[in-house]
Amino acid sequence: MRESVTNDTNQKELVKRFCSVRDESLAIIEPLTVEDCQLQAMADASPTKWHLAHTTWFFETFLLSVHCKHYAVFNPHYKMLFNSYYNGIGEQFKRANRGSLSRPGLDEVLAYREYVDSRVIELLKTDVDPHIKDIIELGLNHEQQHQELMLMDIKYNFSVNPLFPQYKTSLLNSQKKSADIKPLNFINFEQAIINIGTNADDEFAYDNECPKHQVLIHPFSFANRLVTNGEYLDFINAGGYSNPQYWLSDGWAHIQNSRLTHPLYMHCINNEWFEFTHYGLQPLNLSAPISHVSYFEASAYANFVKARLPTEFEWEYAAKNTPLTDTNNNYLTPQQAKDDTEINQLTDSCWQWTNSAYLPYPGFKPIEGVAGEYNGKFMNNQMVLRGGCVFTPQNHLRQTYRNFYYPHQAWMCSGIRLAKDIV
Amino acid sequence: MRESVTNDTNQKELVKRFCSVRDESLAIIEPLTVEDCQLQAMADASPTKWHLAHTTWFFETFLLSVHCKHYAVFNPHYKMLFNSYYNGIGEQFKRANRGSLSRPGLDEVLAYREYVDSRVIELLKTDVDPHIKDIIELGLNHEQQHQELMLMDIKYNFSVNPLFPQYKTSLLNSQKKSADIKPLNFINFEQAIINIGTNADDEFAYDNECPKHQVLIHPFSFANRLVTNGEYLDFINAGGYSNPQYWLSDGWAHIQNSRLTHPLYMHCINNEWFEFTHYGLQPLNLSAPISHVSYFEASAYANFVKARLPTEFEWEYAAKNTPLTDTNNNYLTPQQAKDDTEINQLTDSCWQWTNSAYLPYPGFKPIEGVAGEYNGKFMNNQMVLRGGCVFTPQNHLRQTYRNFYYPHQAWMCSGIRLAKDIV
Amino acid sequence: MRESVTNDTNQKELVKRFCSVRDESLAIIEPLTVEDCQLQAMADASPTKWHLAHTTWFFETFLLSVHCKHYAVFNPHYKMLFNSYYNGIGEQFKRANRGSLSRPGLDEVLAYREYVDSRVIELLKTDVDPHIKDIIELGLNHEQQHQELMLMDIKYNFSVNPLFPQYKTSLLNSQKKSADIKPLNFINFEQAIINIGTNADDEFAYDNECPKHQVLIHPFSFANRLVTNGEYLDFINAGGYSNPQYWLSDGWAHIQNSRLTHPLYMHCINNEWFEFTHYGLQPLNLSAPISHVSYFEASAYANFVKARLPTEFEWEYAAKNTPLTDTNNNYLTPQQAKDDTEINQLTDSCWQWTNSAYLPYPGFKPIEGVAGEYNGKFMNNQMVLRGGCVFTPQNHLRQTYRNFYYPHQAWMCSGIRLAKDIV
Amino acid sequence: MRESVTNDTNQKELVKRFCSVRDESLAIIEPLTVEDCQLQAMADASPTKWHLAHTTWFFETFLLSVHCKHYAVFNPHYKMLFNSYYNGIGEQFKRANRGSLSRPGLDEVLAYREYVDSRVIELLKTDVDPHIKDIIELGLNHEQQHQELMLMDIKYNFSVNPLFPQYKTSLLNSQKKSADIKPLNFINFEQAIINIGTNADDEFAYDNECPKHQVLIHPFSFANRLVTNGEYLDFINAGGYSNPQYWLSDGWAHIQNSRLTHPLYMHCINNEWFEFTHYGLQPLNLSAPISHVSYFEASAYANFVKARLPTEFEWEYAAKNTPLTDTNNNYLTPQQAKDDTEINQLTDSCWQWTNSAYLPYPGFKPIEGVAGEYNGKFMNNQMVLRGGCVFTPQNHLRQTYRNFYYPHQAWMCSGIRLAKDIV
Repeated sequence: MRESVTNDTNQKELVKRFCSVRDESLAIIEPLTVEDCQLQAMADASPTKWHLAHTTWFFETFLLSVHCKHYAVFNPHYKMLFNSYYNGIGEQFKRANRGSLSRPGLDEVLAYREYVDSRVIELLKTDVDPHIKDIIELGLNHEQQHQELMLMDIKYNFSVNPLFPQYKTSLLNSQKKSADIKPLNFINFEQAIINIGTNADDEFAYDNECPKHQVLIHPFSFANRLVTNGEYLDFINAGGYSNPQYWLSDGWAHIQNSRLTHPLYMHCINNEWFEFTHYGLQPLNLSAPISHVSYFEASAYANFVKARLPTEFEWEYAAKNTPLTDTNNNYLTPQQAKDDTEINQLTDSCWQWTNSAYLPYPGFKPIEGVAGEYNGKFMNNQMVLRGGCVFTPQNHLRQTYRNFYYPHQAWMCSGIRLAKDIV
Repeated sequence: MRESVTNDTNQKELVKRFCSVRDESLAIIEPLTVEDCQLQAMADASPTKWHLAHTTWFFETFLLSVHCKHYAVFNPHYKMLFNSYYNGIGEQFKRANRGSLSRPGLDEVLAYREYVDSRVIELLKTDVDPHIKDIIELGLNHEQQHQELMLMDIKYNFSVNPLFPQYKTSLLNSQKKSADIKPLNFINFEQAIINIGTNADDEFAYDNECPKHQVLIHPFSFANRLVTNGEYLDFINAGGYSNPQYWLSDGWAHIQNSRLTHPLYMHCINNEWFEFTHYGLQPLNLSAPISHVSYFEASAYANFVKARLPTEFEWEYAAKNTPLTDTNNNYLTPQQAKDDTEINQLTDSCWQWTNSAYLPYPGFKPIEGVAGEYNGKFMNNQMVLRGGCVFTPQNHLRQTYRNFYYPHQAWMCSGIRLAKDIV
Repeated sequence: MRESVTNDTNQKELVKRFCSVRDESLAIIEPLTVEDCQLQAMADASPTKWHLAHTTWFFETFLLSVHCKHYAVFNPHYKMLFNSYYNGIGEQFKRANRGSLSRPGLDEVLAYREYVDSRVIELLKTDVDPHIKDIIELGLNHEQQHQELMLMDIKYNFSVNPLFPQYKTSLLNSQKKSADIKPLNFINFEQAIINIGTNADDEFAYDNECPKHQVLIHPFSFANRLVTNGEYLDFINAGGYSNPQYWLSDGWAHIQNSRLTHPLYMHCINNEWFEFTHYGLQPLNLSAPISHVSYFEASAYANFVKARLPTEFEWEYAAKNTPLTDTNNNYLTPQQAKDDTEINQLTDSCWQWTNSAYLPYPGFKPIEGVAGEYNGKFMNNQMVLRGGCVFTPQNHLRQTYRNFYYPHQAWMCSGIRLAKDIV
Repeated sequence: MRESVTNDTNQKELVKRFCSVRDESLAIIEPLTVEDCQLQAMADASPTKWHLAHTTWFFETFLLSVHCKHYAVFNPHYKMLFNSYYNGIGEQFKRANRGSLSRPGLDEVLAYREYVDSRVIELLKTDVDPHIKDIIELGLNHEQQHQELMLMDIKYNFSVNPLFPQYKTSLLNSQKKSADIKPLNFINFEQAIINIGTNADDEFAYDNECPKHQVLIHPFSFANRLVTNGEYLDFINAGGYSNPQYWLSDGWAHIQNSRLTHPLYMHCINNEWFEFTHYGLQPLNLSAPISHVSYFEASAYANFVKARLPTEFEWEYAAKNTPLTDTNNNYLTPQQAKDDTEINQLTDSCWQWTNSAYLPYPGFKPIEGVAGEYNGKFMNNQMVLRGGCVFTPQNHLRQTYRNFYYPHQAWMCSGIRLAKDIV
């Protein structure tokens, strides 16, 4: 589809990677209708079309408009329409109304992508300085984040439709039968002073993972796998949603106000449990990890079983001490662990709520310039999730990766990893 | 497209009329993209696609499911998805979320229309009793109401898009130049006891127009034409939106809370006034009737010029004494009146707010059965509008027609007719 | 307490009436603690202390400050603090926050009353022109309205306290035993053209009752008494609050959103029905009129029994044809009617919802000047109630009196009078 | 007022301390009217009367009802009325409605205090086990917290009154003239592993300060004093409230939605700045610490001056390295520091926002039993403040004390301590 004539091998590689990541976004929309691409069933769940345009706007705004001589923007209105939250760039179209834009249509957005892609590839045929490569790298990681968001948002946007549409039409065999599941086991970790985060010297990392710094870890134990749907059902059946003793005060208020009696995508129909998935409504797989739970739910469940959530530092420590054999190709199925002493499901199932607030590391500095709004300004009232999930693109993850959501949110693929103090 | 072999001339006529009305709905969507048809920018402004399906559901639910032997519903989910507000039929999909349904897609909805249409036409090939014809007549009038709603809703749904999309692309010549406008004049009417409403003996009428009954009218005078944009601008420029003295208490609260400083579709850009229309953003035509004003705005303007709004009875009285020369083919342009003693713009420009609350006539009886929810249950907190507007289908109107909206609403094509007491 | 030396007999009478009405407000607060007088449990239910100050402010603002030479206001802040809604006077302290004013204390407000009273009495010792007497008359009627409001508001403000405080401590004997109750009967009225309203020539009347004008009445029948608690319980027990068919659309939405299953002050405790009253929580008197119902509830009940509410014109017509033997000294007890052909409970029990929207009469003109905000600006979305209730001061009522509330409100003493069409 | 005949010296001391703390609450209400004691101008700012009753309820519920044989509760309704948030005890009267309770009156609440006090003192005349002393100690610390809340809440409840009532009527001389103020200076601290928190072995501490544990601190510098009103005005004057670049995303949304342009109690009148205080409206003291700022404001200011807020661990480290010469008897006036190398205003001016989320320490265990709801369930979405303020009772503070509020709250006496990374 695109070709490159740059001599610099490095830049050739970058073009290849650029094309590959950009193509991945298009692959995501293949099963969707034009109408599907415009859905926005809540403020948080942007239309697929908007994601396609916004990730393109990112390259246009931070790369082409700044570093490409004589660049003519595709459409001057897009500056505002597809700006997510960058006050430094200017006004933004109201987030909750993104689904109210039928124009530009999907075709025009795809043309916008082609236009910007060809300019970026053109630019990479010339000798560019390292700073430009950094912006492209940031843009590609940004696009991968949005690929995960697209899959989350499609799931949510479909979920409000009583027809329970299917995003993917065939269910893998592995899905259909319940996998073997290892007994829950807690692995002990000693007290230690460890390095947390990264300086992003060699490998790309977001500013919020930096700088690398020492943290003193107290002795703790860490669950070998995630909590399953079956285990979580025990909590529901024991009256977990009607007993305030397990819940944070804000969490109890939240489930009362929203009249919640189970996680977001679970449905109890004629006394049988189902789960809304990308494959439509499916019987609940009891041995699969519970997913799409809020921090409030994760914390209440941990209280119920007299455990707690790990801190993000404990999680990183445990992850760094675990051979990363996880692969990213199962779909909501627990990976087969060799035995229950091996830590599993670190990155391939669900993001894992930690008990750490999303706050700056000591010495944190936002990226310079307007892109500095990327991470830092959200360091408030959100909790860190670690790991990765089935929606996360391959090679997007790192052990130091910090994801973050508000405690009440549940439309991302979030699960529960337990931990305990050792006393 | 469809053909009929019924022998009964009356039924043949009905089939013809059925096909013609149903086709009109399809004509409306011709300029729209698939994505346009799914827009819902506020709870009140349903997606075009939903209108297409709901008007079909009306025939399926009240006609075919009841009176057509062996009728198989097109899709059992539609019973709930496309039920607007009939509690007697069962649950309804949440109104504000209609825009969150990408499935069924437009294609499937069009297939639904074909399926139902062919069954209705089939039914009309047989001898049917008069009650069935009444239901079809009700369904066609219902569809015509929704045709007006589609045009109103498209306008609103487009209006939140900063690109100001055009529903129609070419502007008629008559639009481009300001029409001659007759001076405002008040025509006097004597005290009288007159018949109001109808018994729907010969011609179709909604239950809310019945029964015909006597009303005592006090002497009044009635404006020969609607208030123009230019006249309304005088109100704005005189500080009308910052002076509570002109406003109803609820109206003042409304414009304060919503921070309104002008009617819904007016835009002041660099000190020039524009108006959002089906043709996109256009310079404000000063001699055209002010449109898309709320009852609060209409009432405040009337106070400003020391007049008042007519009652719905005064309106009907005046209309019945005016030769109906209005035609429905101008677009937001005041019709050329012969002179200023002729009452004009009764049905061809904007609906006209009256100062009558929407309440039952003496002896009012809702239609029997579930369709009785059509009108009666809305007789609360709404005001009657009389006349008709540029969006109203031809031959849908009657002098006894009662339209009704909440006092704060303005997305319908509503204007201002003034009246005065004679003392 | 106060004395007058005016020579003009008329003015002497006015002073006497002034003192008598003003004293009545003080009598109302006798059973209250200082803390009670400051309660405001919802925006609508102003503190007693605020009523005491506001009614005084009315005389200060519209009488003394305008017509009394060298008048020095008691406290310049009161102009804003005790202005209810007169934009013509200036800014108003936020209504919902009136309960947040501990200062001025009750003592200071009582001193304010004394201060203003003595100035008014002083003024009436001089020869004053008729306009001034009109303002005083308006002020006294205004105060009487607030006396009713005080009793309504105290009831509401006490009702949210789980201790169910008693405003009055002993229950009259007449309260304790259920009164005899006549069978429900409908009295027929012929078609007629009658005079509605008044010109306020001899007797005081509000501007909204003027001018006297003719209305054509259609044949109707009118219930001889109000609906009782016992009859309303039948509606509740028949599932009235869970069946949308009886309700206006807005009414159904209201009871769903507010999760109402019975009228405001009714309590079902261990399967027995109680009612919160000025005497605390009392067993529900089945033969007493149902009270504190919203228009939505009144309308739904009327549908349930296949009747309707009367229009305000029908009510006035029936009242004018009924010898007014009602006295105002029973407390929520139905008056003993001679037989079931006599219309009863017109003014001594509960205000009666009509099916008439609160709108201007033909030829309506607000009072001149700022006091013109008294009535006219509220003519929107409210329904007229006719009659009077146990809280209404003696000699405050007229057959032409128009009370008005929003359809969802129920904290005033509102009941249900049924009517029917005659066909 | 009360006397004790216990033999155990320890218990005698406890009785003395009990009486002294309980008396302090009564001292706080001395300047208040009965009406003042009932004010609740927002959900957060409970009535003084409620605080007086709730702190008494605490002793009745957790001490007397459990450990005192034959104890008869003062009033069975109080169990619910004065329960703040203990689900383990049962239902709670709705927090936002506390101001809607005129009954029990202040007199009755004071009688309740006497009743409970005498029972507690009686109990302490007998030999009681250490657990009971612990409960009393908790109850006294609880009461001291509420004494601070009473002063905060009175300030807020008075602040909405346009009369700007004075809680205290004379202004100390020290208030009237601007104190000398030392230049802002940053004191350096080395990297260290330090003990944070306490095990509450000898001295009382809340569960949230436990257990004592090691934390690794990175090099940082710490401001010698708090930010002043004058310095904060620079931020306002530089457009701080209209420039999103300084603000957290949630903070920017908050000040936009609430239309904030300055801190809660600041007023700009005719271009001069004033501050609402316990002494009424006063000219803003430019050298006094800025107070009543939200976390959002504190964080934005820190960004503005290219500094940051300290973590709670840095604060504790700095405090433990500073001789505590602070005294608690100045009122919003910066203490005279010897020179700018001395850290000042640690506990005697304003609580200091830290950049630490309120989360459990490693090994945290809530108090056993129902009182375990005291702290743990609030560990969500709140930020830690350290230090103390002019409203805090003497001897209530510790270096390990953790106060916590939501980021948008500002009615507590909160100020800004700056810190910086050392790189």
